[in-house]
Amino acid sequence: MAARLEFWFEFASTYSYLAAEEIEEKAKAVDVHVVWRPFLLGPIFAGQGWSDSPFNLYPAKGAYMWRDMERLCERKGIAWRPPSVFPRSGLLAARVAAALEGTDRLAPFARAVYHANFALDRDIADPTVLEEILRELSFEAEELLRRGTEDDIKVRLRANTDEAIRRGVFGAPSFFVKDELFWGGDRLDQALEMAAAP
Amino acid sequence: MAARLEFWFEFASTYSYLAAEEIEEKAKAVDVHVVWRPFLLGPIFAGQGWSDSPFNLYPAKGAYMWRDMERLCERKGIAWRPPSVFPRSGLLAARVAAALEGTDRLAPFARAVYHANFALDRDIADPTVLEEILRELSFEAEELLRRGTEDDIKVRLRANTDEAIRRGVFGAPSFFVKDELFWGGDRLDQALEMAAAP
Repeated sequence: MAARLEFWFEFASTYSYLAAEEIEEKAKAVDVHVVWRPFLLGPIFAGQGWSDSPFNLYPAKGAYMWRDMERLCERKGIAWRPPSVFPRSGLLAARVAAALEGTDRLAPFARAVYHANFALDRDIADPTVLEEILRELSFEAEELLRRGTEDDIKVRLRANTDEAIRRGVFGAPSFFVKDELFWGGDRLDQALEMAAAP
Repeated sequence: MAARLEFWFEFASTYSYLAAEEIEEKAKAVDVHVVWRPFLLGPIFAGQGWSDSPFNLYPAKGAYMWRDMERLCERKGIAWRPPSVFPRSGLLAARVAAALEGTDRLAPFARAVYHANFALDRDIADPTVLEEILRELSFEAEELLRRGTEDDIKVRLRANTDEAIRRGVFGAPSFFVKDELFWGGDRLDQALEMAAAP
């Protein structure tokens, strides 16, 4: 069985966008299979007493993050346009992602949503934007958006978030190699190294 | 004039310990001069509404930090013993550091204090521990500890902390290349690269 790395992502998260752009190429280079796991940061932040992104609650931290993202995207050659609304609700997109979980359509969908939010400044909370994204991927747009409103999918996404909390996740992106947690894109290489180790 | 990098550190900060261990060798390799700048995180955290380290206030984040430090120290070959008290007050040590600012005795003193706290689990808030550290370095222990209680030194350290806040610092370690801020040991290489660029 191929080595595995779990990639836990949240669509509102700037640093998850970077990881989503890089992870498949990096993982392929060391023969590791990436398991994409959508979840929501909202309930985790609420549990910490935050009603908003820490980047909005703590302005110095936020100002730094925007500059850091700009620098990192420039270094890495990744498209970047600061979103005019932050954070955007990734709830519906995350539900569609949950509906795609376990299929090879999740990664391209997730990357397209991130690109819309952070490279094109499009409103990923808007169902018509998600519909366009799904159509461009030649996925069944109407069917998947409908699935995203169904109870079993809502429950699945909530279960993912509960699993994240139970396993110690407190931010995004997060990576697991078995039960070893790595937080932040800065730990992606280290996580892949552990995943690839014999 | 040699290229310069400012290294802003706080003695209670685990990740600042790692940076303190690595920075001089890394900077020397790219011909960059390190300017060590002591400051206090307490007033910065207080300004964010925190009365304790975020690693204590947010247990999942804290649990991860301890595991991350253990892993990083092992990878880097840096001595590590989790301190039995966290965070330890670095106030007196930071005042002595402020008294040494601008001299070539600051870096060895700072490294010795970090080593005491994070490799030997010694109480760096205890003046007798600082006295021993200063004696081992063959510095004037009594004189420097006395200086650390004088008003001009207290004012100097407070001015450093105010300067950090004014320039956007929100955590430690932080690095400046001119007015460009980099936060966290994970950005040390990037900061040095910018400092060394023609």
